[in-house]
Amino acid sequence: MFKLLGTNKNARYGKLKLAHGEVETPVFMPVGTQGSVKAMYTDALIQIGFNIILGNTYHLYLRPGCNILDRFGGLNNFMNWDRPILTDSGGFQIMSLSKLTKIDNEGVHFQSHIDGKKFYLTPDLSMKIQHSIGSDIQMVLDQCIEFDDNISQVEQAMNLSLKWAELSKKSFLQSPGRLLFGIVQGGVDESLRIKSSKETIDIGFDGYAIGGLAVGEGHKLMLKTLDFTIPQLPTDKPRYLMGVGTPMDLIESVKRGVDMFDCVMPTRAGRHGLAYTKNGKINLRNSKYAEDKLPVDETSSCPITSRYSRAYLHHLFKSKEMLAGMITTHINLNYYNSIMVELRDAIFTQKLDDAILNIYENWDKKENI
Amino acid sequence: MFKLLGTNKNARYGKLKLAHGEVETPVFMPVGTQGSVKAMYTDALIQIGFNIILGNTYHLYLRPGCNILDRFGGLNNFMNWDRPILTDSGGFQIMSLSKLTKIDNEGVHFQSHIDGKKFYLTPDLSMKIQHSIGSDIQMVLDQCIEFDDNISQVEQAMNLSLKWAELSKKSFLQSPGRLLFGIVQGGVDESLRIKSSKETIDIGFDGYAIGGLAVGEGHKLMLKTLDFTIPQLPTDKPRYLMGVGTPMDLIESVKRGVDMFDCVMPTRAGRHGLAYTKNGKINLRNSKYAEDKLPVDETSSCPITSRYSRAYLHHLFKSKEMLAGMITTHINLNYYNSIMVELRDAIFTQKLDDAILNIYENWDKKENI
Repeated sequence: MFKLLGTNKNARYGKLKLAHGEVETPVFMPVGTQGSVKAMYTDALIQIGFNIILGNTYHLYLRPGCNILDRFGGLNNFMNWDRPILTDSGGFQIMSLSKLTKIDNEGVHFQSHIDGKKFYLTPDLSMKIQHSIGSDIQMVLDQCIEFDDNISQVEQAMNLSLKWAELSKKSFLQSPGRLLFGIVQGGVDESLRIKSSKETIDIGFDGYAIGGLAVGEGHKLMLKTLDFTIPQLPTDKPRYLMGVGTPMDLIESVKRGVDMFDCVMPTRAGRHGLAYTKNGKINLRNSKYAEDKLPVDETSSCPITSRYSRAYLHHLFKSKEMLAGMITTHINLNYYNSIMVELRDAIFTQKLDDAILNIYENWDKKENI
Repeated sequence: MFKLLGTNKNARYGKLKLAHGEVETPVFMPVGTQGSVKAMYTDALIQIGFNIILGNTYHLYLRPGCNILDRFGGLNNFMNWDRPILTDSGGFQIMSLSKLTKIDNEGVHFQSHIDGKKFYLTPDLSMKIQHSIGSDIQMVLDQCIEFDDNISQVEQAMNLSLKWAELSKKSFLQSPGRLLFGIVQGGVDESLRIKSSKETIDIGFDGYAIGGLAVGEGHKLMLKTLDFTIPQLPTDKPRYLMGVGTPMDLIESVKRGVDMFDCVMPTRAGRHGLAYTKNGKINLRNSKYAEDKLPVDETSSCPITSRYSRAYLHHLFKSKEMLAGMITTHINLNYYNSIMVELRDAIFTQKLDDAILNIYENWDKKENI
């Protein structure tokens, strides 16, 4: 269940009530692809303040598989995470990771990227897997496009996705606190997005995702697409922008009325030495930090962020120490969460424009970095 | 300063007072080669109960180097660890890691394993580096042998090590709570070990290490060497068996009067899927654990050890998730520390034989694994 608690222009502050607890929106969900948010203990996620994470249906289906997930009563028990989980449908990873993908009207044939084993994912199977995972928010199976697909390919995929959305809804097992989200497709084309929105809403879901973005179209075209898509969506349901993005992507999308996000960026960048901070990005591998005694952000209330010097982190990355990725992942997830906390507060107090201006000014100042 | 607080036959319970705090012995010191105990936050080390870790002079000299260590006022500040540190002299890593090693009477020429840069390590330089690191316990530079060296090579290395021990002592900067340990060499030869012990004691150190073991001689020959070496050492100084070992190595050495240990085994094995538990070793990569809902040790008071199922850890190792190595390293270090706590208590209460029998019986039972 979603409750809208406040708005500031198009931006929204709300609350999701889910089987495993409540989630305030706008929210960023760390990605726990294979039953682990990479390099993070679940305790540390809770310490940062995260109340929901994302799991990937494609990966969890291949490994550990539904038998083991069923044996544990779902992913929460398996990975020691007692708060909500959202799962994608598997469609996106099939396109990006697996080999020999073949789509027909009923589903997708694919080969596992691990061992080449053949599978056939249908809307019904996707819902069954997500039921085994036991996620609080489940997504309909959709056909994902690539950015360079032509308009007729985009339209075809959109229409197939609408059909699969209906089939997904039929297979979804309703239970209290478990939601099913539809996904609006249509690439960056306004008329397709409007059509997809209408027909997805006609089927009727607990929330609406905007799919098919962050695939190479760039920040401006993504925002333009949001500008004509979001007004099509009902105000009383949560809106989830899939796979997005940079801190600026998040902020500009919240401003336009998006409620939920997920992205591998903070975790992946963290493992590769890029730290996100309130003063901008820091590439910790850069030798200019080799003797820098300052922490990544000395004003942060996060003990991990304010404790370790840039010189130490630089040393750990140069030395290929696991602790490098552990610390910087924590720093980035903390920063991402802190932005969402700040935006929620600002929406609630009707000061979103000021808050955003303040965030951008701090990035531009690049104090001490 | 070392205070002997109790004995049980040859085994000893004692306390070291060092610049950064007190350390109870017998003690196992986790290895923090490059300024990080691999995959472990320092908070987690403290949570387990460790009061001292080891740093490697060779690695820290090459990276980050003395300039940066001096800038930070030592390794403690650099890596956020406020408890004692012991450093080796660099000799062992030069032999095992670097290229083009050439020894003369004054020191060792070597090339960095990182970039091939040439260096010349002398007793004086080793002490200068350890001073920059700021370690509580520093080691004299010694010439390390290989297990297949013949007796005249072993004797030659031993004699050179004695000379370097004198030079190291001359260069060591005394200050309260900073100790310098000598290293007894002589391979597995009784007369050489006796000679090395006598002459090292004649020079006079705050503690005595037994070097040149755990290089392939095996458990029995190592214990035999301890049996004729330890009686040569003074009772009022700590004894440190370098680079050892398995849990059984530790237990049998404590029984014979060793006070201090370091080894990469628990951390390295942890990253590769091998968990040490009170019921024996568990190879978490083994498919027999794929559906095992039990934790590695459900009776452990360590939350990390008792929380995660073997099936989940198996999954994380198969999926190459960093969390796999993080959790299993923690489990192993906790187990190593718990053995030392148990042995200390048993020595203090004069029940060491019973305690050891109990530990071995639990390994043999292999309950539930």
